[in-house]
Amino acid sequence: MAKEKVVLAYSGGLDTSCILKWLINKGYDVICYMANIGQDEDFNMAKEKALKIGASKVVIEDIREDFVKCYVWPAISYGLLYENRYLLGTSLARPCISVGLINCVKENDATYIAHGATGKGNDQVRFELSCYTLLPDIKIIAPWRIPEFINRFEGRQDLLKFAAENGIPVSVTPKAPWSMDANLMHISYESGILEDPNQEAPEDLFLMTTSPKTSVEASTRLEITFEKGVPILLSVIEEGKIYSNPLDIMLALNVLGGKHGIGRIDIVENRFLGLKSRGVYETPGVTILHSAHTDLEVFCMDKEVYRVKQVLRERLSDYVYNGFWFSPEGEYTRKCLDLSSETIEGTVKIELYKGSVTILGRSSKSSLYNADLVSMDKHAGFSPEDATGFINIQAIRLKEYNKFLKY
Amino acid sequence: MAKEKVVLAYSGGLDTSCILKWLINKGYDVICYMANIGQDEDFNMAKEKALKIGASKVVIEDIREDFVKCYVWPAISYGLLYENRYLLGTSLARPCISVGLINCVKENDATYIAHGATGKGNDQVRFELSCYTLLPDIKIIAPWRIPEFINRFEGRQDLLKFAAENGIPVSVTPKAPWSMDANLMHISYESGILEDPNQEAPEDLFLMTTSPKTSVEASTRLEITFEKGVPILLSVIEEGKIYSNPLDIMLALNVLGGKHGIGRIDIVENRFLGLKSRGVYETPGVTILHSAHTDLEVFCMDKEVYRVKQVLRERLSDYVYNGFWFSPEGEYTRKCLDLSSETIEGTVKIELYKGSVTILGRSSKSSLYNADLVSMDKHAGFSPEDATGFINIQAIRLKEYNKFLKY
Amino acid sequence: MAKEKVVLAYSGGLDTSCILKWLINKGYDVICYMANIGQDEDFNMAKEKALKIGASKVVIEDIREDFVKCYVWPAISYGLLYENRYLLGTSLARPCISVGLINCVKENDATYIAHGATGKGNDQVRFELSCYTLLPDIKIIAPWRIPEFINRFEGRQDLLKFAAENGIPVSVTPKAPWSMDANLMHISYESGILEDPNQEAPEDLFLMTTSPKTSVEASTRLEITFEKGVPILLSVIEEGKIYSNPLDIMLALNVLGGKHGIGRIDIVENRFLGLKSRGVYETPGVTILHSAHTDLEVFCMDKEVYRVKQVLRERLSDYVYNGFWFSPEGEYTRKCLDLSSETIEGTVKIELYKGSVTILGRSSKSSLYNADLVSMDKHAGFSPEDATGFINIQAIRLKEYNKFLKY
Amino acid sequence: MAKEKVVLAYSGGLDTSCILKWLINKGYDVICYMANIGQDEDFNMAKEKALKIGASKVVIEDIREDFVKCYVWPAISYGLLYENRYLLGTSLARPCISVGLINCVKENDATYIAHGATGKGNDQVRFELSCYTLLPDIKIIAPWRIPEFINRFEGRQDLLKFAAENGIPVSVTPKAPWSMDANLMHISYESGILEDPNQEAPEDLFLMTTSPKTSVEASTRLEITFEKGVPILLSVIEEGKIYSNPLDIMLALNVLGGKHGIGRIDIVENRFLGLKSRGVYETPGVTILHSAHTDLEVFCMDKEVYRVKQVLRERLSDYVYNGFWFSPEGEYTRKCLDLSSETIEGTVKIELYKGSVTILGRSSKSSLYNADLVSMDKHAGFSPEDATGFINIQAIRLKEYNKFLKY
Repeated sequence: MAKEKVVLAYSGGLDTSCILKWLINKGYDVICYMANIGQDEDFNMAKEKALKIGASKVVIEDIREDFVKCYVWPAISYGLLYENRYLLGTSLARPCISVGLINCVKENDATYIAHGATGKGNDQVRFELSCYTLLPDIKIIAPWRIPEFINRFEGRQDLLKFAAENGIPVSVTPKAPWSMDANLMHISYESGILEDPNQEAPEDLFLMTTSPKTSVEASTRLEITFEKGVPILLSVIEEGKIYSNPLDIMLALNVLGGKHGIGRIDIVENRFLGLKSRGVYETPGVTILHSAHTDLEVFCMDKEVYRVKQVLRERLSDYVYNGFWFSPEGEYTRKCLDLSSETIEGTVKIELYKGSVTILGRSSKSSLYNADLVSMDKHAGFSPEDATGFINIQAIRLKEYNKFLKY
Repeated sequence: MAKEKVVLAYSGGLDTSCILKWLINKGYDVICYMANIGQDEDFNMAKEKALKIGASKVVIEDIREDFVKCYVWPAISYGLLYENRYLLGTSLARPCISVGLINCVKENDATYIAHGATGKGNDQVRFELSCYTLLPDIKIIAPWRIPEFINRFEGRQDLLKFAAENGIPVSVTPKAPWSMDANLMHISYESGILEDPNQEAPEDLFLMTTSPKTSVEASTRLEITFEKGVPILLSVIEEGKIYSNPLDIMLALNVLGGKHGIGRIDIVENRFLGLKSRGVYETPGVTILHSAHTDLEVFCMDKEVYRVKQVLRERLSDYVYNGFWFSPEGEYTRKCLDLSSETIEGTVKIELYKGSVTILGRSSKSSLYNADLVSMDKHAGFSPEDATGFINIQAIRLKEYNKFLKY
Repeated sequence: MAKEKVVLAYSGGLDTSCILKWLINKGYDVICYMANIGQDEDFNMAKEKALKIGASKVVIEDIREDFVKCYVWPAISYGLLYENRYLLGTSLARPCISVGLINCVKENDATYIAHGATGKGNDQVRFELSCYTLLPDIKIIAPWRIPEFINRFEGRQDLLKFAAENGIPVSVTPKAPWSMDANLMHISYESGILEDPNQEAPEDLFLMTTSPKTSVEASTRLEITFEKGVPILLSVIEEGKIYSNPLDIMLALNVLGGKHGIGRIDIVENRFLGLKSRGVYETPGVTILHSAHTDLEVFCMDKEVYRVKQVLRERLSDYVYNGFWFSPEGEYTRKCLDLSSETIEGTVKIELYKGSVTILGRSSKSSLYNADLVSMDKHAGFSPEDATGFINIQAIRLKEYNKFLKY
Repeated sequence: MAKEKVVLAYSGGLDTSCILKWLINKGYDVICYMANIGQDEDFNMAKEKALKIGASKVVIEDIREDFVKCYVWPAISYGLLYENRYLLGTSLARPCISVGLINCVKENDATYIAHGATGKGNDQVRFELSCYTLLPDIKIIAPWRIPEFINRFEGRQDLLKFAAENGIPVSVTPKAPWSMDANLMHISYESGILEDPNQEAPEDLFLMTTSPKTSVEASTRLEITFEKGVPILLSVIEEGKIYSNPLDIMLALNVLGGKHGIGRIDIVENRFLGLKSRGVYETPGVTILHSAHTDLEVFCMDKEVYRVKQVLRERLSDYVYNGFWFSPEGEYTRKCLDLSSETIEGTVKIELYKGSVTILGRSSKSSLYNADLVSMDKHAGFSPEDATGFINIQAIRLKEYNKFLKY
């Protein structure tokens, strides 16, 4: 009988290498799937390693452009922000990688998807819910939730021992005392020494951004142009450079943001499973885009539509964080938010300097801003007497309220 | 017959000085009320000026402590933010000043309140709604909405001419090409050259903060301790200084924030009357407090209560901006939010540097953060198998959805 | 110089007849616009009357089909309900009539719209906001807010006197001691004796429905089929009759609902202006449709999308009540709600009897209801053990909470 | 070693009797806990049965008053309604019973709670989450989720066989082809033939209410008086009877509602686990109270506070349905809603007739309703000109919007 096929979300690291071997030992035919979603990785070396361990096939897919266009750009236009601070870098990557996994399953006629996400985290949920929605019959193997596996690998030493016994190459670089997840949008850091929420994150932790304190002294001025809520043009003024391809814009802003120490946050967040978890994030380029978009949004949108959008964006932020990008509510809310972005177009002037993104000005053809109407020096059809009526009518209810305060 | 008494919200400036004289000419007995709410003003000179113009009385009241304790502190604990960016510095001052006005009315048996707020702005609404709620029978004189007054004073030249004719002293300092409003919390700038939303705010506009670019090179480390959501202790570590009085904390943070270029924003916002307006704000101290509180809030609050609070805080932000601090919904929402703050206590470690507030760590006895539970290295009663069930149950609905996607 | 043209929303009654004459006396050229929106009115007689008074033209337009298809049907699919009870019969008619008014203005090159809505009510707001959005330069004449008019016509006697003096025919039927507004959807009753909220509405008030107490003894069974949230088929089972045209469905349900005493409510509601007002409504057909749609909605929609819809529908209910059908937020919310209705299709079985609409059953091809999955007797891929994990994970947060309850 | 003690939520029926025996066979010392929460049950017979089967102890507790005062009354004041229709009769009973179970655990020093709730339903979640919050160390035995148990008892026949083998008395009444859950508030019916959502519920299913068709011809008039949102007085006018004790009011209204065929609904609802489920409910007394309260609520509450309450009540409805009565968010939301009920007092006049609850009038000392202010015939300080200003200001934003419609 043919072996059952497993598509393993493979990272090249110790954990998924041991899982690969463990699955092979269990009798599975394992195909390793690696998505290039912008992380700093030697994909060829990882491929060789997987094949050496015994993978029947290694699929490497560059999904960076998809990630930017179908996940990062929409998230910016929606203004997604989890618990008011987290830009959802990891959360957005998961459904994008899941699409790759499911395609790999279909192309290779596999039965299972396996992943190395831990049992207390959000990523297991995001991967699995995405996969179940996309292919309800898929079966999932999550070794970090299987008692046999957990009991065998109680700590890192057990993994290293297993690696040594099974000829799995191990990086000579000592492991950092925290775990990280990187993609085009951000790097997140958690666990290890960061589990103490009062322990300051060490400076050498950050890989995408320099510290504001050591960042360049000269500020950089940018202009970012949006259409339907997404960036379509980045102009770096002093350098005279212009970017219009989404991936190019993303990469250029990451470099600029990194250089100026932009986009670091240190937060405690609520995981979907109900745990509180401390995370440190650096999101240079998207922090700039989020600031610019936030500015243009209020400028261009109708006041009341903005308030409806606010409700929808908070819901979607939770959906995305919790793994429901692909879900009825995720898709519905995205469609609604897309409708709200139609008028968000224009250009924002920005300055980057030592950790700060400063908005200097904005212009738009579609803004409801009317300089004449708001001007102190012009009437422009505005009758000040109307404000009296407006206030008096608002006061009716309040005056009644006062009567009954004494009741 | 005795003259009818008017309490005029007097600023000492050209506008309210002309209004004072105009009211006197109309036959009113005018009492000038000046609130010291933290603005940089020579109150004695203003008093002399008002008396010289003909005010029957000038009342100067230091309401700074009230402002900090009853308006700024609650706003921080509620996390109020209008349209995601504006900390509501002016909006919070208006009801506080209105209480002073109404008290002055009662003590002096006055019939009217007069103010110099313009007819297109928010402040007229905030003053008047506050006053109507507190004293429904009060009558309001808003000269900038009275055709006779508007027609007479079409521009600044008309005011200057009226001042010259009526012996009203005029400041020799040339007027800035924008208007401003200052209090303990912030200074706001709008109008004039700022009416062009793409015109960069000039550096010399800012009075409370230095530019991040010229700010000191050495960062400052702070610890702020909160209880029930409000700051009770500020410790400036290197300086070895500790502040515990609310007003002292506020003043010290304004100095520190100002020194490090903290809290500048340049935004377009939606006024209550439906106009879009461009405003530049500097809010040094409260920006620091808001960041610190935001951090502690997620750390200490239950995940779901936090989400309810989020809904309530957005509503209250609008109420406050629109002038409904004193209103059934304002009072009700504040009471609800107070209930949610009971567990927000602990200390946040912060660093200030060139425009940025960086959170370094936090600790709390009341946090639901459980380091053992979240640790990668401990089980702490957590069964990873449970996560499988959790995910599978969540997937039921999604799998059904997939079926009907094909329908 | 040619007279300025006014389009008057004319009802044929005493008020608008006097307004017509008053406008003519003021020197306007008045065109009377009458919308047939389903009210019981002798349009020809009203036309003659208006011409006799001096209208330069009378435009009568049958907008019933537009009303049903573009306002009533969407409202049903959105599930609109103001303050949980009012089906918005009058609120929905106003924007529909406003379109007619604006078209009449454009066709006749008029400058003004005049209406007889009172100064304390909602209808003035609904008419005017609709008209301003559709044609911002339109000018409005609202006599019941013009001091000259109000002072002249302080009570009904003044109107009757003016009518007598100006040869305006007056109906011999004595006026009911309340006012009413009728259209295809409902009749509303308010004012007069109804102003006492504890005064029971008299039985002879109701014109569209018989009292449940005197209604027929035999119940009626219906099946209503929906597609994209709107009714496309009505089958009256015993009678063997089928209706598929929207207007026919509406009319047939009004007759059936009326016969069975369906859809009467007596409520106090909050007007947009901040007053509380008592209204009695009878809405026979739409009450049936609303019940049927509400049933199908939960049956067909995804659970979480339903919750987002709930938020949007409440907002839209307020927008519509307040006169913002035509507005950025009104249009945006309607588009979002339209998206949510795509899967609402199927048939609901209903019984009408003495004031009650009873749902007997429902079927749908697009429902996410899965009888196998929910069955007590089948596993259908459901693992009960998963529920254990689901509950245990939900309990993590609660157990932590308990710890701190004792803190 | 002493046997471990289990507190079993015992109903006296076949399922929990078999579970009782199965637990005894497993070696547990089983204490049966029966809550009298208003269901129609012969508690003494059930007690004898349990003791006969081998329970070490049977605790019967009358928690009806607690249920009414601490769960039903608050739910009425909050206006709880799940998915716009379900009054939460079962959901509210579960936390109340859980308190009894936990008390029984503590008094008897037990280690476990066992229950007979099924693995696909909501009740398992409600019981267990309540228990975990109240006593985090409690252990739960849910046989219908244990593979060994499920495999042994695949259908009713297996239970009957086990009963016969173990001397468990079985009721001679044939089981209805649906399951039911009864308490003081309602009876719910589901499963069996009701699993087909298009299958009409048979008339003989209903136990608390007569059919509207066969109900009495004479209507009944009531007056219900509320204070702080809860009923404090019921006056049945024709009968001259007055009830003021909560349990008496509840029982009297159940009888009256039952007699008039009040409170039947047939719905499909979304379970917490993501399944859609069909339920038939009869809730006679609480349907009357809910209608009366809904009426008084809008009458007494401020318009805007009402809107905040609406948001909170929908959240709490979900929390309660999902089993989170005892939870941070449940407790917080209840406290907020309690604050909103303070002004809800007054009397509602009601008529019951053949399935309908008709509101005839209402009065209240705390209502913000002002008959003079709203009257068509009085000015009462209202200036109609103010409405012009109010509308014109609202129109500013709409007119701007129109401009850009053409853009």
